[in-house]
Amino acid sequence: MEALIKAALEAGEIIKDGFKKNKEVKYKGSIDLVTEYDVAVENFLKKKLAPLFPSHTIIGEESATGKEEPEKAIYIDPIDGTTNFVHAFPFTAISIGFYENGEAVRGLVYNPVLDEMFCAEKGAGAFLNNERIKVSETSETKKSLIATGFPYSIVERKCPDVLSMLGRVLSGTRGIRRAGSAALDLCYTAKGTFDCYYEFNLKPWDVAGGICIVQEAGGKVTALNGGKHRITGDFIMASNGLIHEDMLEMIKC
Amino acid sequence: MEALIKAALEAGEIIKDGFKKNKEVKYKGSIDLVTEYDVAVENFLKKKLAPLFPSHTIIGEESATGKEEPEKAIYIDPIDGTTNFVHAFPFTAISIGFYENGEAVRGLVYNPVLDEMFCAEKGAGAFLNNERIKVSETSETKKSLIATGFPYSIVERKCPDVLSMLGRVLSGTRGIRRAGSAALDLCYTAKGTFDCYYEFNLKPWDVAGGICIVQEAGGKVTALNGGKHRITGDFIMASNGLIHEDMLEMIKC
Repeated sequence: MEALIKAALEAGEIIKDGFKKNKEVKYKGSIDLVTEYDVAVENFLKKKLAPLFPSHTIIGEESATGKEEPEKAIYIDPIDGTTNFVHAFPFTAISIGFYENGEAVRGLVYNPVLDEMFCAEKGAGAFLNNERIKVSETSETKKSLIATGFPYSIVERKCPDVLSMLGRVLSGTRGIRRAGSAALDLCYTAKGTFDCYYEFNLKPWDVAGGICIVQEAGGKVTALNGGKHRITGDFIMASNGLIHEDMLEMIKC
Repeated sequence: MEALIKAALEAGEIIKDGFKKNKEVKYKGSIDLVTEYDVAVENFLKKKLAPLFPSHTIIGEESATGKEEPEKAIYIDPIDGTTNFVHAFPFTAISIGFYENGEAVRGLVYNPVLDEMFCAEKGAGAFLNNERIKVSETSETKKSLIATGFPYSIVERKCPDVLSMLGRVLSGTRGIRRAGSAALDLCYTAKGTFDCYYEFNLKPWDVAGGICIVQEAGGKVTALNGGKHRITGDFIMASNGLIHEDMLEMIKC
């Protein structure tokens, strides 16, 4: 874990360097952005991690092809929240998730702008800047703060349900936050700021780093049917566990 | 302005002190929260500002009664983003706005958690931690990042249009951020992170501090009809000016 943290801190310098500068933006989709910094951070991390973890397949956002789920994988999102990075909104993070046989076994999410380093290893707890974190104790949805995101595909209006779900969540909880980084939404659920986080249509690298952190903080992560979340699944809900079933119900019906 | 900044920095210590602690929460509405810290910060600021500005009427969130629009007013929101403060989400701020004859003439918004001090005086520019800030130069809604909030009354489902508006904005822009503090949404519009911000049903103290900051950063602030924004109005749009008409159109139709 120490070598991983060191690599992330070094990669974070690239993000810090670029955060306040004007960036050249390219488009992967109509609103799915990528910058030279995403590519630079990914290349840096792959070069650092490949010799440290020779038996793992490294899958990075900017170089992945299709849905991949190897036996031992490291999923890297070099800049989760690229739109935030481009606009200098300080919720942007490096996310690195280790998966073995479909289980999240190690996760690191680092926001270099706010100097927040989240990490966890299976069975060893979750930490923010070396301090143990845990999920909230809220057991009522009415007292819960919920994070979510909107799928890129909403631009083509393919997700009408997302808005009616949002309406129900706004009516049934203390409020919604949409900060724009899935990795950090998971970590803020792990540290108890958010009581629940849900989102559709994410990619493995968006969530792989944060899932182990939520689970090690005492939280729950599932698919829409309440069953096991698969890294290649198209929906994720992470919560403190206590409001999980009620939130799934609120989303679904 | 120096005395004002000094008072805000001192009041910020109260917020810093409470940020990570468990707070006793009271309810002004079903999801409209208040803590002992809101009251303490407001009392502190009123005590500091009253002798400095004897000809102004001070209107604070926690002590105001009804809609007030005196000739010379200081609107204080001791903690804008109280829900964020309660949940330790780092977007929370003291907001202080000076109005004279219906015009925003001075504004200060201070986020003590992220150490961001925004301030402006009419004709003298807008600043973040003593560095001049200006709005973005984005002229296309498709390349714009938009901030918004959801009215407390959405809990009673009295605002169905808010969701259909949101759908149009999600489809017509680069995305939505909902960070939970009107004062900071205005300041992040002023510094060019957000290209536009809009919200319904806010109170004078939510926006009074940020409006002068947006205007002095070169931005535009209007009502829903594109005309003058009144501090007691029920809608605000703030933008870089360039996308203002297009965004009003997107919201309305």
